[in-house]
Amino acid sequence: MTDRAGDHGHLIEHTVRSEELLRGRFLHVMRDEVRLPDGTLTTREYVVHPGAVMVIPMLDDGRLVLERQYRYPVRQAMIEFPAGKLDAGESTQRCAQRELLEETGYTAREWAWAGVMHPVISYSTEFIEIWFARGLVAGERQLDAGEFLDVYAATPAELLDDCRTGRVTDAKTLAGALWLQNVLSGAWTLDWQPALG
Amino acid sequence: MTDRAGDHGHLIEHTVRSEELLRGRFLHVMRDEVRLPDGTLTTREYVVHPGAVMVIPMLDDGRLVLERQYRYPVRQAMIEFPAGKLDAGESTQRCAQRELLEETGYTAREWAWAGVMHPVISYSTEFIEIWFARGLVAGERQLDAGEFLDVYAATPAELLDDCRTGRVTDAKTLAGALWLQNVLSGAWTLDWQPALG
Repeated sequence: MTDRAGDHGHLIEHTVRSEELLRGRFLHVMRDEVRLPDGTLTTREYVVHPGAVMVIPMLDDGRLVLERQYRYPVRQAMIEFPAGKLDAGESTQRCAQRELLEETGYTAREWAWAGVMHPVISYSTEFIEIWFARGLVAGERQLDAGEFLDVYAATPAELLDDCRTGRVTDAKTLAGALWLQNVLSGAWTLDWQPALG
Repeated sequence: MTDRAGDHGHLIEHTVRSEELLRGRFLHVMRDEVRLPDGTLTTREYVVHPGAVMVIPMLDDGRLVLERQYRYPVRQAMIEFPAGKLDAGESTQRCAQRELLEETGYTAREWAWAGVMHPVISYSTEFIEIWFARGLVAGERQLDAGEFLDVYAATPAELLDDCRTGRVTDAKTLAGALWLQNVLSGAWTLDWQPALG
């Protein structure tokens, strides 16, 4: 066993060469040759992703705004916090404000950055920045063409019960529930900021 | 807004045709043509994955067994619960027992299935079954050739602090921390079973 604060220099893999394996309409896949810590060579294949944001939107009555969306790869309608990919050059707060408005119609007066997660560290560069939103004001959503999703509200207790019973299995939403539970208990704190104008 | 128990039949996407886009050494990518709820056609590209397990191993002193492993796609050494892919035909408990032994050297007398998560619902079929393990007995680990990872122990408070401060950003491990926190508080319960012989 090593210790919690252990150095990790002895674990690093170094790039030898990099090639594009697939440029699909949606997925961009690379194959790199890498040198392992013992000097041997191996191959790493991974999806290149621009990064994304997820929003935990809290209504004034304490309920959360959630979405139900059919996710084709897993062939299920999934319960999720609102989320979406970063546009080129877009800040993560700007993206969070845009995605919340487009998908749910809500704007929020206050925002707090919570942290970042990596959904699939073995085969994608994707990161998801986690934002909380409060002071919500309802409006008209602006779904992209071909985007179909339902919006609903649930109490934190209902969401956590859905995590426990397996109605929620989306990993980003489960990670959001960890943040939510600890923010609501006061164990973890947030630094609230006004919305970007 | 719809309600929490809303029907989702109106969200379903139907497969029109399916083609293999990439069969790499590691990644297998499909491109399907699908019919959207409004009848229009679009494309879905996604990684085909055999599924995986994650183990939350609890030592008799209350600490957890964790790993630190360099993850090339995100270019960082990541803190993770032990995890690995299912072999063909392997049950998820058998896989959990195998991965824990191979990566950490521990065997566990008791196991409890907690739930399932989907790490990347927009572009992979991957699911991860979540198992708890207790009654741990240390032994010799059996890393695959080319596998380099450190094993360490941390208290639940240390792990949760690492989630809060951003030292832990792996989404499956954050979702595991949600399970752990609720099991330890007694809010969520587990059904413990003996290890498979």
